[in-house]
Amino acid sequence: MYKRRSSRTVSVGDVKIGGDAPITVQSMLNAKTVDVEKCIKQIEELRAVGCDLIRIAVPDEQSCAAFGEIAARTGLPLIADVHYSYKLAHSALDNGAKKIRMNPGNMRDFGEIKSLAARLIDLNVPVRVGVNGGSLDPKYKGMDEARALCESALECANAFESQGMRDIVIAIKASDTQVNIAANRMLAAACDYPLHIGVTEAGTLRTGLIKSAIGIGTLLSEGIGDTIRVSLSADVKEEVLAGKKILQTLGIRKDAVEVVACPTCSRTEIDVSGLAERIEELTAGINAPIKISVLGCPLNGIGEGENSDIGIAGGKEKSVVMLNGKPYCTVENAQLMPTFEKLLRAKIQEYYKNEVK
Amino acid sequence: MYKRRSSRTVSVGDVKIGGDAPITVQSMLNAKTVDVEKCIKQIEELRAVGCDLIRIAVPDEQSCAAFGEIAARTGLPLIADVHYSYKLAHSALDNGAKKIRMNPGNMRDFGEIKSLAARLIDLNVPVRVGVNGGSLDPKYKGMDEARALCESALECANAFESQGMRDIVIAIKASDTQVNIAANRMLAAACDYPLHIGVTEAGTLRTGLIKSAIGIGTLLSEGIGDTIRVSLSADVKEEVLAGKKILQTLGIRKDAVEVVACPTCSRTEIDVSGLAERIEELTAGINAPIKISVLGCPLNGIGEGENSDIGIAGGKEKSVVMLNGKPYCTVENAQLMPTFEKLLRAKIQEYYKNEVK
Repeated sequence: MYKRRSSRTVSVGDVKIGGDAPITVQSMLNAKTVDVEKCIKQIEELRAVGCDLIRIAVPDEQSCAAFGEIAARTGLPLIADVHYSYKLAHSALDNGAKKIRMNPGNMRDFGEIKSLAARLIDLNVPVRVGVNGGSLDPKYKGMDEARALCESALECANAFESQGMRDIVIAIKASDTQVNIAANRMLAAACDYPLHIGVTEAGTLRTGLIKSAIGIGTLLSEGIGDTIRVSLSADVKEEVLAGKKILQTLGIRKDAVEVVACPTCSRTEIDVSGLAERIEELTAGINAPIKISVLGCPLNGIGEGENSDIGIAGGKEKSVVMLNGKPYCTVENAQLMPTFEKLLRAKIQEYYKNEVK
Repeated sequence: MYKRRSSRTVSVGDVKIGGDAPITVQSMLNAKTVDVEKCIKQIEELRAVGCDLIRIAVPDEQSCAAFGEIAARTGLPLIADVHYSYKLAHSALDNGAKKIRMNPGNMRDFGEIKSLAARLIDLNVPVRVGVNGGSLDPKYKGMDEARALCESALECANAFESQGMRDIVIAIKASDTQVNIAANRMLAAACDYPLHIGVTEAGTLRTGLIKSAIGIGTLLSEGIGDTIRVSLSADVKEEVLAGKKILQTLGIRKDAVEVVACPTCSRTEIDVSGLAERIEELTAGINAPIKISVLGCPLNGIGEGENSDIGIAGGKEKSVVMLNGKPYCTVENAQLMPTFEKLLRAKIQEYYKNEVK
C-alpha cells in the first residue's frame, strides 16, 4: 500500500537521504555547542537509541570551533545549523560539517549563494533549505501560509540549483499541523528534492507526540518524507524514540520491537503500565521485529497475546508467560521479569542467527 | 477540507453520538467497579479534563450493583461493558446503564439478542457492538484480519437490527494500527452506524499516544469516527487529554487552548519544557481557542510568537511576554508566570464575554 514519492538522493557523509535510502530519523542537540563534553554525551545517548543524523546549532565562531572538535572526536557526519549566516556556513565547512542547514527567511539576500554553492559542490556537502513558519521571509507575508512556505523554500533551492548544485534537501515546518501537511504536499508535487519532515514548536512531550504523529505520519503515509525529525520540548532521546515509533506504526520500519499493552480495566491485577515501560526501556536499542504483549487480563490475556512472540498475561500473584503466542509457563510475579528477560534474550539471538543465515 | 461521513444519531442519556453531534471523547475507568468511592473520584477527574462519556466494566453481579450506585450518585449517563453476558446486560439496564457494550467475539450465540433488543428499544438505550482483534469470533479466523473484524461486527449489528433496533454503535479495535485503519474504512463504507474509534492495547503513554494519533487521526481526517477513545496503559485522564488533542490537531475541535513550545536548542536560556508543561496543566480544563507560545529563543522568539495570543520569548534573566502577537512587557524571570497568568485570565474573560454577546 505504501508508495514512496520519488526523489533524488543526497549523501551526508555515509548516510543517504532520499531515493531508495531508508527514511532516516534525526535529532538536534540542545546542549550548548560550546560545551563539547555535554554535546558528546548527548550524541552518545542519541546513537544508543538509534539516531541516524544529528544537527548542531552553530550560532557563532566559537560554536564553529566546538563543532569541529565534536565532529573530529565522534567521527560522525554532523549537520551544522548556521541559520542565515554565509560566514558561519563557510566556517562550519572548515570544521568538517557534512550538511549545512540555512533558513531563507532570515537570509534575505541570496547574493552569496554563488560562492557557497561552489564550495558545497566541491566538498560534496548538501544544503538543507529549512523554512520555518515563525521566520518566514517578510515578502511572502499576506499569501496563503502553506503556499508562502512552499514558495520561499523553492526560491532558495532554485538559487542553489542555478549555481549547478544538485544536493539539496528541503524542509518546511509550521507549528500548525494542517498548514504543515498542506505546505509539504504542495512542495512534494513541485520538486524532486528529498524532504525533511517535522512539525515545529510541537510542544511538550504529550502534545508534541500527538502533533508529530499526525503531522509527520499523514505525510509519510502518502509517501512524502525522506528524513524526519520529531521536535519536542523534552529530552532529545524522546525525539528519536518517537520518530522510530512513527515509522514502525506506519509499517515503514519493520526491524523494531513492538510492545503492546492493554489499557487495563477493573479486572487488572498487575502493574501493566509499569511493566510495559520497563520492557520498552529494555528494548529501545534493539533492532529486531519482536512483538511483546503485556496484558493484565486473566480472562482475555491468553487470547490477546496470541499474535505476540513473548507475552505476559498477568494475574494477582502468578502470571502466565507466553511464547510464540502460546502459554509457556506460569510463574510467581517475583519471577516474572527474570523469566521474561531470559525469553527475550533467546528471541533476539534466534533473530540474529536467522538474519545471518 | 474535513467532510464527515454521514451516520445515524444515537443518544446515550443526553449525549449524542453520530450525525451532526460533536465527536465525543470517552474513557473507561480502571478502578475496580466495586470500589465505588474510587470510581466516583476517577469520574470526577475525567469530567474535570472534559471527558464526554465514561464506560465501566461490569464483570459480575456485584459490579452491576456498584454500577447502579455510581450512576445514581453521579447522575451521568454511563456505559456498562458486559463483555458477552446477556444476563449482566439485563442487570446493568436494571441499574441504570445508558449504553451497553457487548463483544460478539465472546458472545458466540446470538439467540438471546431478541429479548435484549426488545428491552433496549423499550428503554431507548443503544448498544455498542465492540469487536476486538484479540477476541475475534473463532469462526472468522483465517480470513483477512481487517475483513474478519468488519464482518464479525456487522453480523452482530445486523442481529440487533433485525429485531427492529436502530440505536447501534460499532467499534472495531485492533492493536495493529494499519489493520485498525483498514477495518474501519471497510466498516465505514458498509453501514451508516455511528462509529467508535480507537486503537486497542496501544501501549505505554509514549507508544500509545503515537499509535492512537496515527490510528484515530487517519480515520478522523477521512471523516470516519463519531466518538473516540484513546486506550493507554496510563492514568485515565491522559486518555481524555490525548483524545481532545487529536481532535484539536486535526482542526475538528476549535475551542481548546493550544500551547506551542520550541524544541529548544543551544541558544535556549530558560526551562521551556517546564514552563510549557505548567501552562498545559493550568489550561487543561479551559474551553477557549487561545494560542500560547513558549519560546526559548531571544533571536527568533518574537517572530515565532507573532501568531499567538499570549507568548513568552525567554531570556537568561529577563523574558519578553507577548500579547496578541506583539511584545507586551519585559519582566524578570521570577515575575514571568504571575504576569503570564494575569494575561491568561484576561484573555479567557475576553473570550467568554465575546461568546456571550
